[in-house]
Amino acid sequence: MKLASYTYKDKLGDARIGAVINNSIIDLQEAYRHFSHSKHGTEQAHHLLPSRPSAFFKEGLPAIQRGKEAIEYVKIHPVANAEFALDEVKLEQPVPNPSKIICIGTNYADHVKEMKSELPEYPVLFAKFANALIGPEDSIEKSPFTEKLDYEVELAVVIGRKAARVKKQDVHHYIAGYTIGNDISARDLQKRTPQWLQGKTLDNSTPIGPWVVTTDEVTAPGHLSIKSYVNGEARQSSNTSQLIFDIPTIIEFISSLVTLEPGDIILTGTPHGVGFAMDPPQFLQAGDRVTMEIEKIGTMENIVKAITE
Amino acid sequence: MKLASYTYKDKLGDARIGAVINNSIIDLQEAYRHFSHSKHGTEQAHHLLPSRPSAFFKEGLPAIQRGKEAIEYVKIHPVANAEFALDEVKLEQPVPNPSKIICIGTNYADHVKEMKSELPEYPVLFAKFANALIGPEDSIEKSPFTEKLDYEVELAVVIGRKAARVKKQDVHHYIAGYTIGNDISARDLQKRTPQWLQGKTLDNSTPIGPWVVTTDEVTAPGHLSIKSYVNGEARQSSNTSQLIFDIPTIIEFISSLVTLEPGDIILTGTPHGVGFAMDPPQFLQAGDRVTMEIEKIGTMENIVKAITE
Repeated sequence: MKLASYTYKDKLGDARIGAVINNSIIDLQEAYRHFSHSKHGTEQAHHLLPSRPSAFFKEGLPAIQRGKEAIEYVKIHPVANAEFALDEVKLEQPVPNPSKIICIGTNYADHVKEMKSELPEYPVLFAKFANALIGPEDSIEKSPFTEKLDYEVELAVVIGRKAARVKKQDVHHYIAGYTIGNDISARDLQKRTPQWLQGKTLDNSTPIGPWVVTTDEVTAPGHLSIKSYVNGEARQSSNTSQLIFDIPTIIEFISSLVTLEPGDIILTGTPHGVGFAMDPPQFLQAGDRVTMEIEKIGTMENIVKAITE
Repeated sequence: MKLASYTYKDKLGDARIGAVINNSIIDLQEAYRHFSHSKHGTEQAHHLLPSRPSAFFKEGLPAIQRGKEAIEYVKIHPVANAEFALDEVKLEQPVPNPSKIICIGTNYADHVKEMKSELPEYPVLFAKFANALIGPEDSIEKSPFTEKLDYEVELAVVIGRKAARVKKQDVHHYIAGYTIGNDISARDLQKRTPQWLQGKTLDNSTPIGPWVVTTDEVTAPGHLSIKSYVNGEARQSSNTSQLIFDIPTIIEFISSLVTLEPGDIILTGTPHGVGFAMDPPQFLQAGDRVTMEIEKIGTMENIVKAITE
């Protein structure tokens, strides 16, 4: 299932969670309302399957399971007024307001080399805050305080269940799904102090999306082609098999120190090919079209927009 | 006004926001209910003055202003069942679930020297997440994954109003108040990778409190004595006048990059005297009593508790 957050185009209103099937999106709460009515004779949708994406992902795996049942039902019993063509809606950031966004730095060997960093002995963790996150159809804001804005395609893991001290072999029980993150980095701000945070969490800089693909559709997250393009020009091309610390290792590591909550996002690191390491360096400019592609997940494309002071 | 979060001792139930006066705490929503009833003949407390501390601080300065009016009223017209002795309640973390906790590193010159760091050209920003925060009467959890747990007394600023691109001279309009933060740091985890996050955001490690003192009672936040003790032994003793980047500078700097929201917490840095820099180094052990003291705010004392694997 591809879980997307959507709003009706040209209409105000809160974003709702939906499932993307081909070129349509089906409202998940509405589908569940019909399903539960047919099954139980009552409508239990409201509290069992929240319509708001942040509440949906904070509920986590049980909500996803209900969503799957509902989608199976409406495939057989189509529901009026709950299905929209994708071009009728705007896709929003699928997992709003996570309690944590934890990023892994220097986690592909070829990227470590191009950044002149050292191969890490332990996973390097750093943070973003939710102010940075935007959706797959939003523009990447280029702050007037950076001249060195750069892209980083990353496989993002969305947590589905409270996770403390999880062992490697059990991590698949704690994952809601996978999406794409573009870990936009202002290299000048990132590197002017020893801590990267100020270059990593600029307002409205970091696209997430286009949707969260549930684990049943991404059975081998450690073997996915991962690519990025700027204005159609190939920049990054690698495979998640090249991760230094793989997803089970990362989640075991983080959850030994920090309790992960449903809806938390982990960005697993970026491969070789960022603009900072090109010769000469190439940074993002207003109007640039930045495309991210991960196998089994899809494509996300965002335009860079300059913000004036 | 001293804004505290409290629960009834030995009773389950959500924490509520209150105002501490001498040895009592007055429930702020209950006080406002009586005040608004006397003024308007109707009870508007529920949505204008949230009882839950996180909602109260997300409302920010308008809620604080209502709280002040309510407290003035109940000083003259005491309200039954809304005032408790401090020893009848437990004080909780005053500002739960901030959307951001931004910490300033290396911000006192004498601490920069003892940590063998360099004097920063720009404020060094790093993050904690809300999983780390505990209240003034909670125990500091010592994770089994660290042997080098350390204290850091810090003046904490709580944001009262959405703040983007605020100029130095205007920052006082955006502050809800001040409290004490103990920026507990696992030095071994903090320093084993170039990014400090993993040593800074351990579950239930970071006491905040005992209450948030509003700006009218802390008119010179840049001239406060700041101290820490371990088991009664003086460790840190300085003054916020020694901050390299003062509060207006910090808020102008952060808000130029990141939109601050009401309830966000900024930890402004710690002075000389941490255990890591003693000769030989002294780290916190289970049973240690850690006391933090800041002029005009008060004292916070927490016990270290070992967590087993």
